[in-house]
Amino acid sequence: MDYGRVFAGAIERLHEEGRYRVFIDILRNRGSYPNARCFAGHNGPKPITVWCSNDYLAMGQHPKVIAAMEEALHDVGAGSGGTRNIGGNTHYHIDLEHELADLHGKEAALLFTSGYVSNEATLSTLGKLLPGCVIFSDELNHASMIAGIRNAGCEKRVWRHNDLAHLEELLAAEDPAAPKLIAFESVYSMDGDIAPIAAICDLANRYHALTYLDEVHAVGMYGPRGGGISERDAVAGRVTIIEGTLGKAFGVMGGYIAADRAIVDCIRSYAPGFIFTTSLSPVLVAGVLASVRHLKASSEERDAQQAAAALLKTLMADAGLPVMASESHIVPLMVGCPMRAKRVSDILLAEYGVYVQPINYPTVPRGTERLRFTPGPAHDETMMRELVAALVEIWGRDELRAAA
Amino acid sequence: MDYGRVFAGAIERLHEEGRYRVFIDILRNRGSYPNARCFAGHNGPKPITVWCSNDYLAMGQHPKVIAAMEEALHDVGAGSGGTRNIGGNTHYHIDLEHELADLHGKEAALLFTSGYVSNEATLSTLGKLLPGCVIFSDELNHASMIAGIRNAGCEKRVWRHNDLAHLEELLAAEDPAAPKLIAFESVYSMDGDIAPIAAICDLANRYHALTYLDEVHAVGMYGPRGGGISERDAVAGRVTIIEGTLGKAFGVMGGYIAADRAIVDCIRSYAPGFIFTTSLSPVLVAGVLASVRHLKASSEERDAQQAAAALLKTLMADAGLPVMASESHIVPLMVGCPMRAKRVSDILLAEYGVYVQPINYPTVPRGTERLRFTPGPAHDETMMRELVAALVEIWGRDELRAAA
Repeated sequence: MDYGRVFAGAIERLHEEGRYRVFIDILRNRGSYPNARCFAGHNGPKPITVWCSNDYLAMGQHPKVIAAMEEALHDVGAGSGGTRNIGGNTHYHIDLEHELADLHGKEAALLFTSGYVSNEATLSTLGKLLPGCVIFSDELNHASMIAGIRNAGCEKRVWRHNDLAHLEELLAAEDPAAPKLIAFESVYSMDGDIAPIAAICDLANRYHALTYLDEVHAVGMYGPRGGGISERDAVAGRVTIIEGTLGKAFGVMGGYIAADRAIVDCIRSYAPGFIFTTSLSPVLVAGVLASVRHLKASSEERDAQQAAAALLKTLMADAGLPVMASESHIVPLMVGCPMRAKRVSDILLAEYGVYVQPINYPTVPRGTERLRFTPGPAHDETMMRELVAALVEIWGRDELRAAA
Repeated sequence: MDYGRVFAGAIERLHEEGRYRVFIDILRNRGSYPNARCFAGHNGPKPITVWCSNDYLAMGQHPKVIAAMEEALHDVGAGSGGTRNIGGNTHYHIDLEHELADLHGKEAALLFTSGYVSNEATLSTLGKLLPGCVIFSDELNHASMIAGIRNAGCEKRVWRHNDLAHLEELLAAEDPAAPKLIAFESVYSMDGDIAPIAAICDLANRYHALTYLDEVHAVGMYGPRGGGISERDAVAGRVTIIEGTLGKAFGVMGGYIAADRAIVDCIRSYAPGFIFTTSLSPVLVAGVLASVRHLKASSEERDAQQAAAALLKTLMADAGLPVMASESHIVPLMVGCPMRAKRVSDILLAEYGVYVQPINYPTVPRGTERLRFTPGPAHDETMMRELVAALVEIWGRDELRAAA
């Protein structure tokens, strides 16, 4: 076995497919986001504008969040020093779990080190706790949900994206006595469309299935208190488990689930990905607490973000750019080829100081490679008009038309 | 399917076995660690002394670490805002990866959100990249390594703990042409014993296997620059992949691997647990950078920690307490029953203000339940003598003798 050749070959395949990832090297400028600094090696160092952050509401720059983190840092120090069970459970963690349970109107919540881990740990553990369980998974579910479902080791049925008839067909085909779990997202982050949560809950009731809803791209963003699409649609009480992230609209890092007490206690007690890992730094938890509390009381950031997204979609459509239909705050622009998507992104960065990452397989299906813009409260109309003008100019270049 | 009954039953089993976990609710006091505050519900609020933290060197309280985190917080904000590929790659991440590669004398390093994720993501991805791979796993490997090996979906052989003859027997039984990976730890955290790394590398050479070494309980702690047991034993160059954590001796949060460039690039490019997750907060990364740099230059904390561990072991042995043989900084005290371990821990907290968590199955095998002490540079001799006196008093109580 020539190990070196295997590893080199794996990398070579990515280059050939035009999807070898080069990480751009940046630092954001606190207080003046979306401005940032791009470092050498990417035509830098120079100032850039970030158009692809998931810090949707710029809460990672919010004075309340920064102040809370600074206070925790000076009060208790850097890390938690252990797992939740062994020395790493702080009062901040307990407070935040209460805050998140309240946000979703659930009895309890549980923190994880990331949204990825919350999905993987919860879904894999649920599958093991429910012998004979069949998991019904939307075909566009995130990689972390797919990992959790696969690691659960139980039967899986994949339903066509947001297709209720197909979901019902699959549910009806199973043994009525078998435990069932329907796993789906509210906002699908690469297309920007939204699941019909109420109708899925109707099917869950009819076929006696549990529901698992990933709201990572919606918490903080939708609903009067930022409880997500399930709050906006007043269906949170019908969903068994709501999963969210602390690293997107809440601006910090980490993930969580909210559900009834027994389910949360089971995941807390049985999930290796929860049990055997150092808990979130109390500094992060303190920041999230401030962020969640602020967004429960303030809709200003949500409203400004929605207005920005709507304006950018309109400006792009008016300019004839291939902006994809999106019901949410996500603004995806179809390119359809990994090489072209990367080329447009490279030109934007090098010539216009615009940073937007190309989105390639496996994040999206091959042939649907795109640029994905996430305008926020701090992206103003002037920035948007400049961006659209740059895109129109680049779209018209011979090299990109020829490659299409 | 009565879901409620299944979940309630799963929790009931834990109560019956005496291993239902109750998280103690604490806040550490920065600057006066190991002192902390215990909150209500645990006979609190009151001051306690923490004896079970994995912040082994108290670097989570170090002024350089706190200052670096504060600076980053004010310079760039709370969270990274995205995955490493999409907006979440900062200059701090790149600097830290260089620093960690240098610490282990490797070409490259890669950050993960936790040590758990680094093990799971790397091992599962390696197994998939090497068709027909057989993974040889020490029977006491951590849950995260077990998860990674299982999720790799390839053949697994479990060798008896630190038993070279058994490992060789298993290696010899496989097809010489099959790719092989030997996965093990340096310091086993619950027993405190240490793997014979050089001898394992000899076997790896003989049978043409890759080696994967988990050094999470050793990085920062052993070797002249804190490169772990592999640095102390001058064998880092012989190990294919070294994995470490940023949440124990380095005092913050996160995990990493260090290896040659091609392997790191493969994991970076193929591991879902790396690709599809928000990157570590730059605030954490800045703190780790300061911590790693400090411990590369200073052995003062390591020396003080080793002296404290040696003294506590001696004091416990002299007092006739069942301290387990340990070659490392870990001081485990055998109890052998989950109910008794919890009872001793409860009395220590309620009557003596001593916090040490009982360690139960599945963290250790049933029947080997224990208390695990991690004295650090800040635990002085007076504290240790008080602790030992308390343990002797509790060990002599009728209720605990009767239950034995």
